[in-house]
Amino acid sequence: MTDGSTRHPDDSFHVFDTTLRDGAQREGINLTVADKLTIARHLDDFGVGFIEGGWPGANPRDTEFFARAATELDLRHAQLVAFGATRRAGAEAARDPQLAALVDSGAPVVTLVAKAHDRHVELALRTTLEENLAMVRDSVAYLRSRGRRVFIDCEHFFDGYRANRDYALAVVRTAYEAGADVVVLCDTNGGMLPGGVREIVAEVLAATGARLGIHAQDDTGCAIANTLAAVDAGASHVQCTANGYGERVGNANLFPVVGALEIKYGRSVLPLGKLAEMTRISHAIAEVVNLTPATHQPYVGVSAFAHKGGLHASAIKVDPNLYQHIDPELVGNTMRMLVSDMAGRASIELKGRELGYDLSAERELLGRVVARVKEQENLGYTYEAADASFELLLREEVHGSRLRFFTLESWRTISEQRQEGGTGNEATVKLWAKGERIVATGEGNGPVDALDRALRTALERIYPQLAKLELVDYKVRILEGSHGTGSRTRVLVESADGTATWSTVGVADNVIDASWHALEDAYTYVLLKSGLEPGQD
Amino acid sequence: MTDGSTRHPDDSFHVFDTTLRDGAQREGINLTVADKLTIARHLDDFGVGFIEGGWPGANPRDTEFFARAATELDLRHAQLVAFGATRRAGAEAARDPQLAALVDSGAPVVTLVAKAHDRHVELALRTTLEENLAMVRDSVAYLRSRGRRVFIDCEHFFDGYRANRDYALAVVRTAYEAGADVVVLCDTNGGMLPGGVREIVAEVLAATGARLGIHAQDDTGCAIANTLAAVDAGASHVQCTANGYGERVGNANLFPVVGALEIKYGRSVLPLGKLAEMTRISHAIAEVVNLTPATHQPYVGVSAFAHKGGLHASAIKVDPNLYQHIDPELVGNTMRMLVSDMAGRASIELKGRELGYDLSAERELLGRVVARVKEQENLGYTYEAADASFELLLREEVHGSRLRFFTLESWRTISEQRQEGGTGNEATVKLWAKGERIVATGEGNGPVDALDRALRTALERIYPQLAKLELVDYKVRILEGSHGTGSRTRVLVESADGTATWSTVGVADNVIDASWHALEDAYTYVLLKSGLEPGQD
Repeated sequence: MTDGSTRHPDDSFHVFDTTLRDGAQREGINLTVADKLTIARHLDDFGVGFIEGGWPGANPRDTEFFARAATELDLRHAQLVAFGATRRAGAEAARDPQLAALVDSGAPVVTLVAKAHDRHVELALRTTLEENLAMVRDSVAYLRSRGRRVFIDCEHFFDGYRANRDYALAVVRTAYEAGADVVVLCDTNGGMLPGGVREIVAEVLAATGARLGIHAQDDTGCAIANTLAAVDAGASHVQCTANGYGERVGNANLFPVVGALEIKYGRSVLPLGKLAEMTRISHAIAEVVNLTPATHQPYVGVSAFAHKGGLHASAIKVDPNLYQHIDPELVGNTMRMLVSDMAGRASIELKGRELGYDLSAERELLGRVVARVKEQENLGYTYEAADASFELLLREEVHGSRLRFFTLESWRTISEQRQEGGTGNEATVKLWAKGERIVATGEGNGPVDALDRALRTALERIYPQLAKLELVDYKVRILEGSHGTGSRTRVLVESADGTATWSTVGVADNVIDASWHALEDAYTYVLLKSGLEPGQD
Repeated sequence: MTDGSTRHPDDSFHVFDTTLRDGAQREGINLTVADKLTIARHLDDFGVGFIEGGWPGANPRDTEFFARAATELDLRHAQLVAFGATRRAGAEAARDPQLAALVDSGAPVVTLVAKAHDRHVELALRTTLEENLAMVRDSVAYLRSRGRRVFIDCEHFFDGYRANRDYALAVVRTAYEAGADVVVLCDTNGGMLPGGVREIVAEVLAATGARLGIHAQDDTGCAIANTLAAVDAGASHVQCTANGYGERVGNANLFPVVGALEIKYGRSVLPLGKLAEMTRISHAIAEVVNLTPATHQPYVGVSAFAHKGGLHASAIKVDPNLYQHIDPELVGNTMRMLVSDMAGRASIELKGRELGYDLSAERELLGRVVARVKEQENLGYTYEAADASFELLLREEVHGSRLRFFTLESWRTISEQRQEGGTGNEATVKLWAKGERIVATGEGNGPVDALDRALRTALERIYPQLAKLELVDYKVRILEGSHGTGSRTRVLVESADGTATWSTVGVADNVIDASWHALEDAYTYVLLKSGLEPGQD
């Protein structure tokens, strides 16, 4: 295990992400190990310096995460960090099982949470102030002796500093002198405002000379500002989470913090070119976590550069920067006009170009496509995450008719839980393809799985290209304004053929019907891409 | 019409709300006049000093709002404000129809937006810098002569100050000398950070001696902090919107701004007792606007005081303030304990207490429940969002057996898209209740809807309490999504009986089966809550 501190090219400023540890404490998030690995890849892709993966030992899922990360995660920018606590009161660091688990995780960097508020030492830890300092000293020293780079999270630091300044400073000094590389001042209860943070961070820096970090919670709605205030006062390590996920209101949001540092402060804290990936990565992480991306998030939200006001629109025609603080392209976002169809045509044209259609001279067609997209989106469709379905829609408008390689006659699914136990799922599809009527039945884990197998069975003989088709992901969302179990449902299906992946969407009043539409588009698309011309049915 | 400035008891600090004007520019908001009147009542109820109602004359709906407000709105705390712009270039104030409409609205206070950025005067207004100053002077003077109190919104102020300091200051002085009571510095594009705001506000105050206000947009995620920074520098008028609604990312959120001023600054900016109404009013306004209340809003969000981490729970047992920056009751919110795989005995005990069980002396039982929760969560269950299922699990551990009011024999669902068109969904349930075997069939919008109806049909006669049961929400999550359409599925169902709502969860390899389990729990729970003792089957 190499010493973590020499690996990272520029160690002078740390962008430290704790989505997988603190972010996971947000109500409504429940991450599997696979989810965590996927998110870690996105974060590494974005270029953060550190990814705090969880609390191995304390949390079995996290122990598994670190074990799998060792072979499955190939990080190019970030270092993995294991989170844990100082040794138990009265115990020996070298024999503390929790610290041992941190070492066993294999992570090159460890963050230890330590109490910095006298009241918490007494009430929550139920030990003495002196013993707490020894816990800090011993634990840091132990981990350093095992070749780990150590950061210390001083929990409740600001409240502790205001209650007992000397003790809080003693914790900082003890940690730093024992070998912690960064002492992170945590506003754990989130009650601080930026003025107070700036003041205290400056005082602590002057009093201890330690390298300081900041961990802000968002309970007053000032986490981003508090983080920047700490940087203003000399902190060089910021702890954030993607999309601000976290306990209670949440944590300092990685994206606006990095956005401010890069764009407003002119500091290069990400690898070159990564800022423009911000919108994509923010949305990708929200998808993994299965939370609707916050539409009004700074920089990356779908509404962040959406202009409604009439005065704004006319000014923007002259110069978009009249009503935008930055060019949205800087962060991978786009401007949207909410009332004008001029911008609508422009986006369709650009998307069409992306898909290989030159529609620059096709003003009327573009107008029709814009209208259809708006109509579909009103019904619940989303083409942002379903490029293949969009291409089929575009093709339909260009050629004047819907592309069909098969025509459905009927489908039926039967799901049952039997008296003797066990569940069964069966689907039958009746369709026409290349002039032939086909009836096929499939069985599966669920009604949609059965429907997919029935459709594949029906078509595979006629269209051998379908053999490569594999359905790799499947998302269901009940759309806003749900009416109990009879809700409008949107299904997104991701397919692959070994070389490419693509997404399709279906919307209906129930999940089976919506899935049928998404599957139909997926099968149609793969046949289109295989170079087939549609035959007659 | 009385002179507005003498009416309000304490005019030294202004809480100025612009939900109905700027807030309405949020994507997705579309307010009727009735909506606006209702929101105005809520805002007045909360005790804001000023309610900016819209742009009469320019916006017909707003003209109607002011007309109706004259007779229908009985404001006890706030004054109504009409928003508009300075006179047209080259025109006479007294003959400007837009200014006339502002007077006609009857509002005692008028806010005029004026350009304070030279580039905007030239590109957007297409007039000279001198003429723009005259427009400001004349318009303010005219409205004062008509007995109105005037505030000026200096649009793009901070960008304008940085581009051409002298001109921006000239606009401030001109407005103030012409009789504007407050000159509001607007960060219209939202690109400012708190440090810059504080500096500029302090400089403007020193240079002009005008009474200053702040209007912050949230594009950098710092609107609240920017507002407070301006107050720190001497501003005494803050413009906000309820729930931060507004153009693009949004405006400074009224509730955390007022929360900070009242609780952190110890300043009384609301009438006595109103702070405790904050949560209720925030949610009420979200209802009118038909947007789901943001769950993670500071102070008022349903997650704002929801605790997940196990360590947090054990500390909270000792003292809730160990992990909360304020007592949630101060703002009308409540603390919630979340049960998840992060839960420990303390979380279960506190959650049990919330549900009416005293488990303080039941250490062994608590340990068993913790183990079962972790085991279930590992299978994909989530109890955080399914209180009722959790209570059934707890009850099972307490009483030693699963609570049953009915025993399933079998169920079956059939979904089909028919040859002649149209889809159909039917379910048949066979079960035993109170010694009787029942077979029932239901039809619905989808297979789960049909299953729900079949179950209700089967049980309603035997258990009339079920008549009140209504399923109001339904969420599906495919777990470990990498198995395509054959994935482990989690379903959350929210039910209501007219007075309370509760949530249940089900996990299985397909959505129908998972839904069955969630429905079974929901029905069992409502029967439990109705006071029934389980009979034998």
